Amino acid sequence: MLVSALLTSVGINTALCVLFFTFYSILRKQPNYYDVYIPRLLADGTSKWRSLFGFERLIPSAGWVAKAWRITEEELLSSSGLDTVVFMRLITFSLKVFSFAGIIGIFVILPINCLGTQLDEFDIIDWAGNSLDVFTISNVNNGSKRLWIHFSAVYIVTIFTCFMLYNEYKYISSKRTSYFYSSKPQPHQFTILVRSIPTSSNSSVSETVESFFKEFYPSTYLSHMVIRRTSKIRRLLNEAKKLYKRRIQLQSDSNQQNCFRAFGRKVSRVDHYEKKLENIQENLRLEQSEASLAGEETRAAFVSFNSRFAAGTAFHLQQSVNPTQWITELAPEPQDVYWPFFSESFMRRWISKLVVIITCILFTILFLIPVVVVQGLTNLSQLKAWFPFLTSILTIKYVSQVITGYLPSLILQLFLKTVPPVMEFLSSIQGYISHSDIEKSACYKVLWFTIWNVFFATLFSGSFLYQVSIILDPKSIPGRLAVAVPAQASFFIAYVVTSGWTSTSSELFRIIPLIISLISRPFTKSTNDDELEAPSMPYHKDIPRILFFGLLGMTYFFLAPLILPFLLIYLCLAYIIYRNQFINVYAPRYESAGKFWPIVHNSMIFSLVLMHIIAVGIFALKKLSLASTMMFPLPVLTLLFNEYCRKRFLPIFVAYSAESLIKKDRQDRDDPNMAEFFDKLVNAYKDPALMPIQYSSNTDSLRRPLVS
Amino acid sequence: MLVSALLTSVGINTALCVLFFTFYSILRKQPNYYDVYIPRLLADGTSKWRSLFGFERLIPSAGWVAKAWRITEEELLSSSGLDTVVFMRLITFSLKVFSFAGIIGIFVILPINCLGTQLDEFDIIDWAGNSLDVFTISNVNNGSKRLWIHFSAVYIVTIFTCFMLYNEYKYISSKRTSYFYSSKPQPHQFTILVRSIPTSSNSSVSETVESFFKEFYPSTYLSHMVIRRTSKIRRLLNEAKKLYKRRIQLQSDSNQQNCFRAFGRKVSRVDHYEKKLENIQENLRLEQSEASLAGEETRAAFVSFNSRFAAGTAFHLQQSVNPTQWITELAPEPQDVYWPFFSESFMRRWISKLVVIITCILFTILFLIPVVVVQGLTNLSQLKAWFPFLTSILTIKYVSQVITGYLPSLILQLFLKTVPPVMEFLSSIQGYISHSDIEKSACYKVLWFTIWNVFFATLFSGSFLYQVSIILDPKSIPGRLAVAVPAQASFFIAYVVTSGWTSTSSELFRIIPLIISLISRPFTKSTNDDELEAPSMPYHKDIPRILFFGLLGMTYFFLAPLILPFLLIYLCLAYIIYRNQFINVYAPRYESAGKFWPIVHNSMIFSLVLMHIIAVGIFALKKLSLASTMMFPLPVLTLLFNEYCRKRFLPIFVAYSAESLIKKDRQDRDDPNMAEFFDKLVNAYKDPALMPIQYSSNTDSLRRPLVS
Repeated sequence: MLVSALLTSVGINTALCVLFFTFYSILRKQPNYYDVYIPRLLADGTSKWRSLFGFERLIPSAGWVAKAWRITEEELLSSSGLDTVVFMRLITFSLKVFSFAGIIGIFVILPINCLGTQLDEFDIIDWAGNSLDVFTISNVNNGSKRLWIHFSAVYIVTIFTCFMLYNEYKYISSKRTSYFYSSKPQPHQFTILVRSIPTSSNSSVSETVESFFKEFYPSTYLSHMVIRRTSKIRRLLNEAKKLYKRRIQLQSDSNQQNCFRAFGRKVSRVDHYEKKLENIQENLRLEQSEASLAGEETRAAFVSFNSRFAAGTAFHLQQSVNPTQWITELAPEPQDVYWPFFSESFMRRWISKLVVIITCILFTILFLIPVVVVQGLTNLSQLKAWFPFLTSILTIKYVSQVITGYLPSLILQLFLKTVPPVMEFLSSIQGYISHSDIEKSACYKVLWFTIWNVFFATLFSGSFLYQVSIILDPKSIPGRLAVAVPAQASFFIAYVVTSGWTSTSSELFRIIPLIISLISRPFTKSTNDDELEAPSMPYHKDIPRILFFGLLGMTYFFLAPLILPFLLIYLCLAYIIYRNQFINVYAPRYESAGKFWPIVHNSMIFSLVLMHIIAVGIFALKKLSLASTMMFPLPVLTLLFNEYCRKRFLPIFVAYSAESLIKKDRQDRDDPNMAEFFDKLVNAYKDPALMPIQYSSNTDSLRRPLVS
Repeated sequence: MLVSALLTSVGINTALCVLFFTFYSILRKQPNYYDVYIPRLLADGTSKWRSLFGFERLIPSAGWVAKAWRITEEELLSSSGLDTVVFMRLITFSLKVFSFAGIIGIFVILPINCLGTQLDEFDIIDWAGNSLDVFTISNVNNGSKRLWIHFSAVYIVTIFTCFMLYNEYKYISSKRTSYFYSSKPQPHQFTILVRSIPTSSNSSVSETVESFFKEFYPSTYLSHMVIRRTSKIRRLLNEAKKLYKRRIQLQSDSNQQNCFRAFGRKVSRVDHYEKKLENIQENLRLEQSEASLAGEETRAAFVSFNSRFAAGTAFHLQQSVNPTQWITELAPEPQDVYWPFFSESFMRRWISKLVVIITCILFTILFLIPVVVVQGLTNLSQLKAWFPFLTSILTIKYVSQVITGYLPSLILQLFLKTVPPVMEFLSSIQGYISHSDIEKSACYKVLWFTIWNVFFATLFSGSFLYQVSIILDPKSIPGRLAVAVPAQASFFIAYVVTSGWTSTSSELFRIIPLIISLISRPFTKSTNDDELEAPSMPYHKDIPRILFFGLLGMTYFFLAPLILPFLLIYLCLAYIIYRNQFINVYAPRYESAGKFWPIVHNSMIFSLVLMHIIAVGIFALKKLSLASTMMFPLPVLTLLFNEYCRKRFLPIFVAYSAESLIKKDRQDRDDPNMAEFFDKLVNAYKDPALMPIQYSSNTDSLRRPLVS
């Protein structure tokens, strides 16, 4: 790719970015779009619909940027929880690491790269028409002593990153512990989920659970809640909800547009929906009462204890002589439970896990088809060969620049948009019990998918089997990476700009909710605050992106430091935007207390080791074999560092220690509110599908006896 | 290797085997060698020195073979414990699997191999002068449809082995559970070992432990015993023991050889030792009392609880907020504790583990030098080139046969004898607390060492780097194995015969104890029963051998089935000898309740997968690519099977379930002996180096006050 093509891409994206920011600054002040731009404030009730009149509504303002920048970590913690704080720390962590790497990269390595004469073709006058390669390590002369500076930079940045990683892990661990100490008694702290409960013909699952825990935990067992199959009720509920929304909409329409409709027709339509709703509600009540009494029990139950320590004990110890029965895990928060898909037996979970893994691999393979097409688009001559009729257009300089510099990454970007939902779906059928676990697992899947299908597929464009053949020949990996990585520097810079800048600011703009809101009620305000639900943060979409950019920054900082300013601009944008779309848009649905930090840590370690492997290859390629050999200890030491961190910090992210649990239990011992809490705990894990609902305005049915 | 050379080796080894059996049958009846051949019976006191006179003492008899064969599993369990039963089951398991594989191999595959014409050089008249290759798969014609029989055999034997593995794992798991249920209360069931106790300047380790467990386990904590550094006392103890032995020997010499010595000299020598002993004993008493009061405390302690469930809880839960402090593990039996090397801190253990791993790798690399020499010896022409003056001797047919067929494996065998002690030493400095853990870890080390340095080094004789280069090129592994494995069939048959038959029967003969006994007292009986200590079974030496032969049997059964009869004879020999080297010789030092079975399971799975990889290569080499492709699902399914077993059974071998612990605790609740047991428990984990000893005949010193 030429410098000019890259500049075109940067230009387009900067323009788009500014446009999005400006539009957002204006639109967020229009009351019609409050539910798009500040749904969280509305749902919390902290901001009411208010009407601004006059000119200021139409002028973009940047006050919100300053506001987002100013908010402190404590404020964020109290308003959005620890997960949000940890997410923001991921961005600040990346900012710190890449500022450090950026200083070394731009002020030390970049000049050295430019001073090289290996690619002796750089024309200082027509610099925009030149390849970016002159700014990369490719331009440093083979065997040059200057390469030792690159070598030292790799060591220094690795040490700095590990130091930062250690501090961050330590800080977040301590935050996690103090969060637990300061938390109020919560149902999930006292509860475990038991799966694979052995069934017998002469007693129900509920009886089996009760007799088991009464026998083995007589002094600490409190209650249990067997999970029932409620898919039918769930279907009815969805139907009722839809009808209810339709009726509400019709009512508001009819109120406002009273005069435009014939009286008879209007009444009959609302009445028709009301009648339907009543029927469904009646059905639901019957189904619910049937399910709670004699519904199909799954072989899983939530079991609550009267202390956190007892729940911790039951979680940590293997319960039954047969390790595939009575499998325990920590219960998620009640609102975090993912009810729909409930695989309760050991074998079924195991098989669904296998199926998901295989599906993931297949999905990854099939996905390469569009990626290969995208690779083709970056190649202008190939494009001309494919579509000869376009030749005349493609020869226009500007068009060709757009196509090579911007279009490929945009198309890839659009394809990649389908990945997070697919991965989330796959994780959801893998047998996880909670939304947070599903998000975490989807996060890993999206991350590895991106690394494989963007990073490696771009480097080794070719068939899946070709890539597999590279992996099966590990000796050649450093060499191949060393050739391929610097050559793709410009592609990845363009990728950071497109996928980072524009995509992040388009999320600020919230295009899809905006379109929905424009279609459903172009000029009116029809929803009321009660039913407004703030969306939850899609961590599985955003964390992998930041981590993938981290991987790019890490692997490129000494090869092509030009990527770092673009990355830092992205991180600053992300810092502002995420702090804002948290204050105004996203409400935490659950609190995993920073459980996804280990993903960040592992990903950074992977990036470091990948950088070392590339460095080994580069120095061998540049005929500096001593540096290549002396690079070997670095990945080994990094992996040892990771192993130490895994032992030192990871257990804190799995479960709380006996010391914490017992201390926390003692705090509550004299609390008079505990009796009330335990009363509520008994029903905390009731399936929301079995809760009474009231959609119809006719309340008679609620009082009618079920059996006449 | 030629058939005749192999036959020579078999002949020599059979003769040696018969010789060992005959000598053993005679020598075991000589009272002078009772302490060599039946030390266990003597130590148990079940057999007394008795004098047989007459002719029958000099006639070999085979009654002991029948006796060893007849003993039931229950008798073995009650006399030697579960570990012994599990060890014997390893042999019977191998017998079953390889009998099945043997029937298929000898009656189906061997005829097919012989019917091939790929190596069309077999001379039926001079069959002893021919290569063994005609009996191997190498002789089957390329692309022959008959290879599908080999293909089916691989599938059938894999399925049968997996079926047997599952049953065996299940059986041993149930044995382990029932062993626990039927056991008496034992100190290690109520105790955990705590390491990495945080120290503070104003309290001792003992105070820290007491306050921690009194705070967090007030109702279940019973007592603790901080471990102290006792290396100095241990040195004194060893010195005292040596002096004591010397004195005893002198006394018995002087009693019997009264008339041969001058009175004054005799008395003064015994007195001299008695004086020295008294001094050391005095020193020891002082050191011991000092150590128990103010000796250097390590940061580790045994902590006992009043129930098994409480100990289990403290083991399973992470105790402290910092996961590298208060690290708990299950306590071994008191007699199983390995006191000398006690690394108590997390970092120190971690570093020693790393050092041991690196040392192991270095040892493996250096060991290849003798292996390469041995490889050279099998090659007659190379030998002639090295030692030209031997040419005349080497041309004698018999000598050349001995050298190619017997000598190489004998030399390798002698070198390999050094491996188990070295590996045991390495495991002992790795930071394990118990002899059983050290044995288990050494067992793994010896096994992988053998697989690497005997199997792979024989196949790919060459430098270590060459072997590493093969591993770094995994695609080529099946192909290379397919070429190398059948070619080495005869070497491994000779190896089974030498290392299996002769070595096992030489262990029956107990050469080294015999020599020691011959040197120390050629014609007299001087030891008395009290100080006789039966040796403990060296599992880390014997299990890897059996497992390695299992690997050979598994990988060769369809390539060169000729190995199977030799293997089965070895297993039968081993069955008799081990059942005998358990009744008469070895006494269990500890009881790990079959904890080493997972090693057996993993090793068998490895053998199966290795067989599949070789099969993939063989069928590709034999131009039957469909069979090669259709082999792929088998290793995947085998690994899935292994994964299932790991989930289903492995936890049972790590710790007992809550159900078992609580049930067992309840059994004891009304036992009146428990109070007495708990009294003893307090001192159960006292370092034996701190126990009072009495070697000197002068007992005054024991009553003398320590401080005058």
